[in-house]
Amino acid sequence: MEFKSKIKTIEWVDNYSKMVDQTVIPYEYKFINVTTGDNMFHAIRDMIVRGAPAIGIAGAHGIVLYAQEGAKKFTNVEDFKIWLIDKAEYMKTSRPTAVNLMWACQKQIEIIRNSKSDINGIVEELKQNGIKLENEDIEINKKIGDYGAEVVPKGATILTHCNAGALATVGYGTALGVVRSAYAKDNTIQVFADETRPRQQGARITTFELAMDGIPVTLITDGMCSYFMSKGMIDMVVVGADRIAANGDTANKIGTYTVAIAAKYHNIPFYIAAPLSTIDTSIKTGKEIPIEERSHEEVTHINGKRICAEGVNIINPGFDVTPHELIAGIITEKGILRPDYNKSISEAFEK
Amino acid sequence: MEFKSKIKTIEWVDNYSKMVDQTVIPYEYKFINVTTGDNMFHAIRDMIVRGAPAIGIAGAHGIVLYAQEGAKKFTNVEDFKIWLIDKAEYMKTSRPTAVNLMWACQKQIEIIRNSKSDINGIVEELKQNGIKLENEDIEINKKIGDYGAEVVPKGATILTHCNAGALATVGYGTALGVVRSAYAKDNTIQVFADETRPRQQGARITTFELAMDGIPVTLITDGMCSYFMSKGMIDMVVVGADRIAANGDTANKIGTYTVAIAAKYHNIPFYIAAPLSTIDTSIKTGKEIPIEERSHEEVTHINGKRICAEGVNIINPGFDVTPHELIAGIITEKGILRPDYNKSISEAFEK
Repeated sequence: MEFKSKIKTIEWVDNYSKMVDQTVIPYEYKFINVTTGDNMFHAIRDMIVRGAPAIGIAGAHGIVLYAQEGAKKFTNVEDFKIWLIDKAEYMKTSRPTAVNLMWACQKQIEIIRNSKSDINGIVEELKQNGIKLENEDIEINKKIGDYGAEVVPKGATILTHCNAGALATVGYGTALGVVRSAYAKDNTIQVFADETRPRQQGARITTFELAMDGIPVTLITDGMCSYFMSKGMIDMVVVGADRIAANGDTANKIGTYTVAIAAKYHNIPFYIAAPLSTIDTSIKTGKEIPIEERSHEEVTHINGKRICAEGVNIINPGFDVTPHELIAGIITEKGILRPDYNKSISEAFEK
Repeated sequence: MEFKSKIKTIEWVDNYSKMVDQTVIPYEYKFINVTTGDNMFHAIRDMIVRGAPAIGIAGAHGIVLYAQEGAKKFTNVEDFKIWLIDKAEYMKTSRPTAVNLMWACQKQIEIIRNSKSDINGIVEELKQNGIKLENEDIEINKKIGDYGAEVVPKGATILTHCNAGALATVGYGTALGVVRSAYAKDNTIQVFADETRPRQQGARITTFELAMDGIPVTLITDGMCSYFMSKGMIDMVVVGADRIAANGDTANKIGTYTVAIAAKYHNIPFYIAAPLSTIDTSIKTGKEIPIEERSHEEVTHINGKRICAEGVNIINPGFDVTPHELIAGIITEKGILRPDYNKSISEAFEK
């Protein structure tokens, strides 16, 4: 039985990109139509759309938007291409850590470079490719979910951090894709969701989308994971990824590494769920992954209200890197990769 | 050089107990006069006063308040004693985990039981003992601070969780007592403070009292500790305690255990700082420590605003237990206790 999620996070409609505004969840569930390339750049940077696979699609859509704008201004196809590739490279810089963004923008750049069409033809090719990536994302997520579901024990409680769900992808989820596929087979499983300070994607987004899809979820604060692990209340951990190095080291939302260490201490399997597009084989280890520094206000304020004294220092890394030795497996659309990751990752790309 | 803190958290004045209202920090720094035993019970339960040593003193003061009330009603000293011991036993139940509360109330009960005085004499004895415990708390904290300062490396960054500071005690602090004593010798040390969700005592109270005393503090979210440890930015961890078992297992604010595991993984020493009154030798291991379950709203709401979807489950343990194997030392007023804790703890009580 296939799990039907109610959520479609991002979708190309006619000549614009329609997306869920994730900054107002769980208070509102509303859609924004992004109609220009620059607006897409800001939607990604300001996290109106977030989650590594979703911002990949957003980047691809954004390049279609730039192409539509350029088609109104340029007459020479080669000039158009030069301008558009510049814009596509700029789109890659909207956020630094999630490699899916660079991957999807690069796919569009290759179409621009290789196309033999005229300007309007290139716009159409980019649009079709944006829609194709969108559809593939759901298919890939479902494969990840189905492979992952095989290692979910009956009646399991699955801990997750941040949101690697339908709202981090086009519509099914990576870590929560595993949850959805497992739940379709066994409705006695449940989720524990870390709040995920500072931006509380676990509290705001994961609880929202699981409640919307009717999957039982318990919200815990980030420090609590070890307590519940020590009580035997967590059977496995599954999280998403923003970038995976060739050796399996994985960048994901800040706090993930702490959960991975706690899982190791309690001998609880810790899995990454991510498409192959999240794996960056150009870097050998996690040390090479750039970590985004985000605004201090994310730490000092919640819902616009200050939560700490004046005069404190803040450092706000958006991500951390979990070393491969803490990872039981990387659940991909080509199956579950196991250590040695250098080997299993390069084999997955050859399949 | 002795460090002078600007903070006096709780103080007996004439015939009432004056305390800092910790529910409004860091927005306001104001005092509340608690004038009845029942009001003290609620001040402890509602965390107007919090921190294991501080609620010990609060409990002792509360029994003086009950004694003053009883002295107006009773004529027979034995009847007065029976009634007052009942009230003192009730005061012990205002919160379950911190053993200092039971310890200080028990000290007052022994005075009631053993006194040969008349009713007014008993009231006076209880009052004098309350003031004595208050003064001793500061002296004990300073000893803890001085012993602890000996193991703080030059220029160290000390990570702490929750608030075991001046505002958790009468006025100097246990974990932050170590910080104050170390800072008096070496003003290049600094503190990293975990936010400590759900109630954010680290963000609200630790940053406030350190800023007030001019000690550099960086606020981090609870999930970030491992990131900074992996970067070599944390030299040691010092936290307080709510109850320590005979084998060294230590109950402290939820999230402490997660930090301890992360410290172990990075070979960073993790210390407990607490007076001997926090050690409960009547229990063999941490398994016997009762863990307070607190309200769901602490997790689902911040500053009165909901942060998650409707329909989520909540479990909100107020404390967790760090097993003795993760603890490098317990810093007490009798020196730093080291493993084997069964031995070093029983020796400390014999000194």
